[in-house]
Amino acid sequence: MKRDIYDEDHEAFRGSAREFLERSVIPHVEQHAHDKAIPREFWTEAGKQGFLGLEIPEEYGGAGAGDYRFNAVFAEELSKVNAALGSCWGIHADICAPYIVELGTEEQKQRWLPGVASGEILLAIGMTEPSGGSDLAALKTTAVRDGEHWVINGSKTFITNGYSADLVITAVRTSPEKKARGITLFAIPADAPGYSRGRKLDKVGQDESDTAELFFENVRLTDEDIIGELDQGFIHMMQKLPQERLGCAISNVAHAKQILEETIAYTKERQAFGAPIGSFQHNKFLIAELVTQIEVAEAYIDKCTVAHDKGELTPVDAAKAKWWSSEIQNQVLDHCVQLHGGYGFMNEYRVARAWRDARVSKIWAGSNEIMKELIGRDVGL
Amino acid sequence: MKRDIYDEDHEAFRGSAREFLERSVIPHVEQHAHDKAIPREFWTEAGKQGFLGLEIPEEYGGAGAGDYRFNAVFAEELSKVNAALGSCWGIHADICAPYIVELGTEEQKQRWLPGVASGEILLAIGMTEPSGGSDLAALKTTAVRDGEHWVINGSKTFITNGYSADLVITAVRTSPEKKARGITLFAIPADAPGYSRGRKLDKVGQDESDTAELFFENVRLTDEDIIGELDQGFIHMMQKLPQERLGCAISNVAHAKQILEETIAYTKERQAFGAPIGSFQHNKFLIAELVTQIEVAEAYIDKCTVAHDKGELTPVDAAKAKWWSSEIQNQVLDHCVQLHGGYGFMNEYRVARAWRDARVSKIWAGSNEIMKELIGRDVGL
Amino acid sequence: MKRDIYDEDHEAFRGSAREFLERSVIPHVEQHAHDKAIPREFWTEAGKQGFLGLEIPEEYGGAGAGDYRFNAVFAEELSKVNAALGSCWGIHADICAPYIVELGTEEQKQRWLPGVASGEILLAIGMTEPSGGSDLAALKTTAVRDGEHWVINGSKTFITNGYSADLVITAVRTSPEKKARGITLFAIPADAPGYSRGRKLDKVGQDESDTAELFFENVRLTDEDIIGELDQGFIHMMQKLPQERLGCAISNVAHAKQILEETIAYTKERQAFGAPIGSFQHNKFLIAELVTQIEVAEAYIDKCTVAHDKGELTPVDAAKAKWWSSEIQNQVLDHCVQLHGGYGFMNEYRVARAWRDARVSKIWAGSNEIMKELIGRDVGL
Amino acid sequence: MKRDIYDEDHEAFRGSAREFLERSVIPHVEQHAHDKAIPREFWTEAGKQGFLGLEIPEEYGGAGAGDYRFNAVFAEELSKVNAALGSCWGIHADICAPYIVELGTEEQKQRWLPGVASGEILLAIGMTEPSGGSDLAALKTTAVRDGEHWVINGSKTFITNGYSADLVITAVRTSPEKKARGITLFAIPADAPGYSRGRKLDKVGQDESDTAELFFENVRLTDEDIIGELDQGFIHMMQKLPQERLGCAISNVAHAKQILEETIAYTKERQAFGAPIGSFQHNKFLIAELVTQIEVAEAYIDKCTVAHDKGELTPVDAAKAKWWSSEIQNQVLDHCVQLHGGYGFMNEYRVARAWRDARVSKIWAGSNEIMKELIGRDVGL
Repeated sequence: MKRDIYDEDHEAFRGSAREFLERSVIPHVEQHAHDKAIPREFWTEAGKQGFLGLEIPEEYGGAGAGDYRFNAVFAEELSKVNAALGSCWGIHADICAPYIVELGTEEQKQRWLPGVASGEILLAIGMTEPSGGSDLAALKTTAVRDGEHWVINGSKTFITNGYSADLVITAVRTSPEKKARGITLFAIPADAPGYSRGRKLDKVGQDESDTAELFFENVRLTDEDIIGELDQGFIHMMQKLPQERLGCAISNVAHAKQILEETIAYTKERQAFGAPIGSFQHNKFLIAELVTQIEVAEAYIDKCTVAHDKGELTPVDAAKAKWWSSEIQNQVLDHCVQLHGGYGFMNEYRVARAWRDARVSKIWAGSNEIMKELIGRDVGL
Repeated sequence: MKRDIYDEDHEAFRGSAREFLERSVIPHVEQHAHDKAIPREFWTEAGKQGFLGLEIPEEYGGAGAGDYRFNAVFAEELSKVNAALGSCWGIHADICAPYIVELGTEEQKQRWLPGVASGEILLAIGMTEPSGGSDLAALKTTAVRDGEHWVINGSKTFITNGYSADLVITAVRTSPEKKARGITLFAIPADAPGYSRGRKLDKVGQDESDTAELFFENVRLTDEDIIGELDQGFIHMMQKLPQERLGCAISNVAHAKQILEETIAYTKERQAFGAPIGSFQHNKFLIAELVTQIEVAEAYIDKCTVAHDKGELTPVDAAKAKWWSSEIQNQVLDHCVQLHGGYGFMNEYRVARAWRDARVSKIWAGSNEIMKELIGRDVGL
Repeated sequence: MKRDIYDEDHEAFRGSAREFLERSVIPHVEQHAHDKAIPREFWTEAGKQGFLGLEIPEEYGGAGAGDYRFNAVFAEELSKVNAALGSCWGIHADICAPYIVELGTEEQKQRWLPGVASGEILLAIGMTEPSGGSDLAALKTTAVRDGEHWVINGSKTFITNGYSADLVITAVRTSPEKKARGITLFAIPADAPGYSRGRKLDKVGQDESDTAELFFENVRLTDEDIIGELDQGFIHMMQKLPQERLGCAISNVAHAKQILEETIAYTKERQAFGAPIGSFQHNKFLIAELVTQIEVAEAYIDKCTVAHDKGELTPVDAAKAKWWSSEIQNQVLDHCVQLHGGYGFMNEYRVARAWRDARVSKIWAGSNEIMKELIGRDVGL
Repeated sequence: MKRDIYDEDHEAFRGSAREFLERSVIPHVEQHAHDKAIPREFWTEAGKQGFLGLEIPEEYGGAGAGDYRFNAVFAEELSKVNAALGSCWGIHADICAPYIVELGTEEQKQRWLPGVASGEILLAIGMTEPSGGSDLAALKTTAVRDGEHWVINGSKTFITNGYSADLVITAVRTSPEKKARGITLFAIPADAPGYSRGRKLDKVGQDESDTAELFFENVRLTDEDIIGELDQGFIHMMQKLPQERLGCAISNVAHAKQILEETIAYTKERQAFGAPIGSFQHNKFLIAELVTQIEVAEAYIDKCTVAHDKGELTPVDAAKAKWWSSEIQNQVLDHCVQLHGGYGFMNEYRVARAWRDARVSKIWAGSNEIMKELIGRDVGL
């Protein structure tokens, strides 16, 4: 069904985004996968074009778009190229930047936002720990007061952009006895003494993103490196959840939709037993199902996008969008692989990579099980 | 997620609908099921309140609402009471009445519409034949010219409202050699000589609706009983498909949503092993899934409703709405039965009846397989 | 795949069973459904033929077959006629009779077994209570000592054969403080003063079985009416679980397999768009899936049958057989309905009734959720 | 449920197989994955231990076991280590060797079988072509008579063991006009002039196997290189299908079962929210479902194994085993990934690799769609 949430301005912006991608990104995606990294040039070029600071006020070098739908458009176009571009950009611009914009002091904004918008300061977010998964109450990275310093020790894992990040917004326990209510967000610069990174993690998919483990050994920061309020990190993170989950959902659907379209084209060309394989009734009905599932999910995500743009999207509705979109994405892509036959198992085919890439979307950003827990609570169970 | 397609007027109308149902309908639903019929009083009372002529111009006794969302609201409220009310009303007011309004001559409108709006002329539609299913090209009921008469012979089956209908809009073959393009719609009055009805069909669900087989033996009609153009019946029917499918979809989701809400309430009350059964994680996660599926489907249907209201809903998008909503409806209700344990198998529980009622929605109004065929074609397969 | 657990004797017995069913039962099944009861003649005739006492020693009037596969064959042939015959016979002969055979005193055996084998004493089992579901620790029916009597008060629900049973093996709390370990089995005769039955329950399916609520108001029994040991009822019931679950599983698969075969025949005959509907690829692949699912499930059940015949079937493996077979049965039958189109929603079609009948198999005999709990525990979770 | 098809001899053999794997294979599996190859030492060492010639008569250096269950045991133990070991060995010893044993001339047997048994002649099978997929009638590789030579031109793709194979049993068109009935099998040695291989294919999973494209440019062979009869290749291949499909099925289930066991162990150790994650009801029920699915599938495969050992397994029953086992394997492994959370997306975890490895099993050896076509035909559709 025709989408109705984007107007001419958004579509013009989509055109610019595509042009940028076709010119500056798509020619290099094989290299990204090979290097297991999106190079700094991507970030600085995207910065030049204004794609990194959509939510950053103009006075700090951003576009100050003030309309979340521009974020959505850019996330979609990236995800259509590949999932890792969508997720790496999402972490930097859609998830991390708003922390500084909304919670940062004037000094912090001046210190970091221009670099964030230009691509010179690449952001990551450090929540998950090796032993802890989704359980923030079990957070083990600590910051201990030492005069005017905070001394940080601990480690984080599964950090998207982690290997190349310049500044990591990190959840740290400041009040051991207060469980989830004793967590503070620190912006830890990668050049701080005691900061180190592990190797790039060898992942099932999203080869292009540099995911890493991070280690903090007596990293010394001050109050000026705290984002938001002391001990209020949990609440700050909760407030960002709708946007984080929605961003995932937008990417999930755009990613699967693109590969489905390519797969439909493939089934019209590829012949077997004397006819295009898409003409076989089993495949035809299957594709009809997949097309429907994508459109139905997209309608929901679009509705969420509009709600979020008005500031009305609840965390629980965003949770629905997140888990459902990732479920559909994975189902659709699995069928797309099957429709490609043996080629679907070859990494040179986009569908094969997309299938691998998508698997994590049911796990990260709060696993789908966590989403269901939240939804269950919301209906009073 | 909060719905956004209805404004205050629609909600006020919903209030009136509910009041009508609570006062005049709900006290009698057990009787309807027992009698396998919705009595004439329902129709005439609904007629008095203006609920039958929402799409009929005021000059013929209708409300001339000019806004499909009023139909949608009424369909929802009926379906929340039970599925058969939704489908019987839908056949009369949402599917059949528009044929006369949009295709009827002035004389026909005056002859029939006031009675349609008042509930004195109950409508049904006769498409399906015992041997034919969804294949209109195989239609065997014929009309043969005899002077100024048409002589109609044949039979129809699975006719909702069939036992009590006063006027049946019937697809009849007038040009045998022209396959689907040789079909004409006749409005056949139940008191025409040669018209007879079989017994009420004994159905798996929707006990309240009187579904019947109809027989035509030398029924004599004239050109004045033709709805629309000679031999254009197929095209006329095609034009009505978006509304028919959308109407089904609206009812499917409203029906399942209502029972799901009642089931959630049940799982909060019902105890097992010392706790409400809804508090068990398996049930909690399951309910979270069902709530999500309903909301996502609803978002799509709502978008279709808005599109249809603007005259922009395509038959293929309506096909997506129809098959998907019926699939979700059936899945959700099957889980709702399970959540009721042994009580879910007892007809005195609403959930049990709802489960039986819903099964037909994957079959009728074009089976889900036909919907997938259409969607497959639409993407070029 | 060809089954390999039955030899010539079993197949000869199957032939006799079929002959009996074709001559004495099938001509009356419409009447059974209409009456909501299987008449006493069924039982006495089956008794005459030796089908009720397969596990009862010859000295008490049974066949003393000593080979569970005869039970399995008879259960299959009944379930192929309809599910209620399978379940009503199963309760009497496969579930209840063994309690008396294995736990009864000599006097009890002489008192009851000849009538059980002849069909003159119809058995039922009373476990479930209105408030309790699967939670035996919450059992509220009590027996209190009064001199040499036990005075029983309480009620049971969802009792298959409940309306017509002559003797009900009933779980009763004798030691209130001992939870599951304070339950005793009493054989309560239907003519005991204070015993009464509610109306026949109006069920979603299995119309032919008379399911009822039973009430006990100061029913006075003695120690001679206790089956097994005082306070050991829970353990006695646990020992019977493998056979109960396996019996369900055998019936579930035989039932669905039979209807699937009839459906395949239907899809070869029924034409649409100029070809048998079974020739359409979507249906063909679907049927291939259903055939596979049935055969795979059957292989597992057969293996369980052989294990049980050797006394080696564990309760947890029987739990796997029970839940999986009921899941497959319901999935298969839902597709069979769909393959019948509109006729699949008409009760005069066997597929429609089978679909309704099957729904309870996911709920009763320990709900599928309970089965999963047991399996989860068995793997150490 | 306890398996019953293996006796003490099989279990002793299983012990030897495990010992071999633990000593000679498991220490090197990381290297295999890195090299994208199983080294020749694996083959020669396995040959020394007698694991390559289970079906080869003793006079040609094999074990002449004459009991397919030894093959099954070895396939299981390999697949428990990783899927590629299972599939590479399967191609060599379980699929290709029997062609020579059963169809080869005495001269051919002497020429090749000792090397096959010792691991010095590694086998592959060349059926699939870039343009053709599962459609043998469309085969484009041709052999043209030139005096006493056959001149072979064409190419094959997706050839397991293709990069390192010494001898490739290849389907070649010898009679262009006879479609599927004009195909001959040639044993093409890798050192034949005109034989070349493409690069190792970069696959989604099964990193350890060297899959390649093969090219034949005027490769000259003689009648002595034909396996079986001229133009009878299709029939020869058909006769091998039960064993090929069964071999896949055995590996599929053993592979998934092993990873499921490791996953269950993981869920007992891994803590979240203060408890082992396996103790959460949602996970517990899920694992109960997975355990059941594996055991049920295993029962069917075991029954097929016994039937095949007696020479009674039909191609269509093998087709059921193949598609169902691959479906279950993939479903189970997807859930196992999810149960590992973020670690499930990391290639250093066995579950992550297993998930990637398994994907191809729904595609190769005749895609699951082809299997369903065959089953549909078998029931007369």
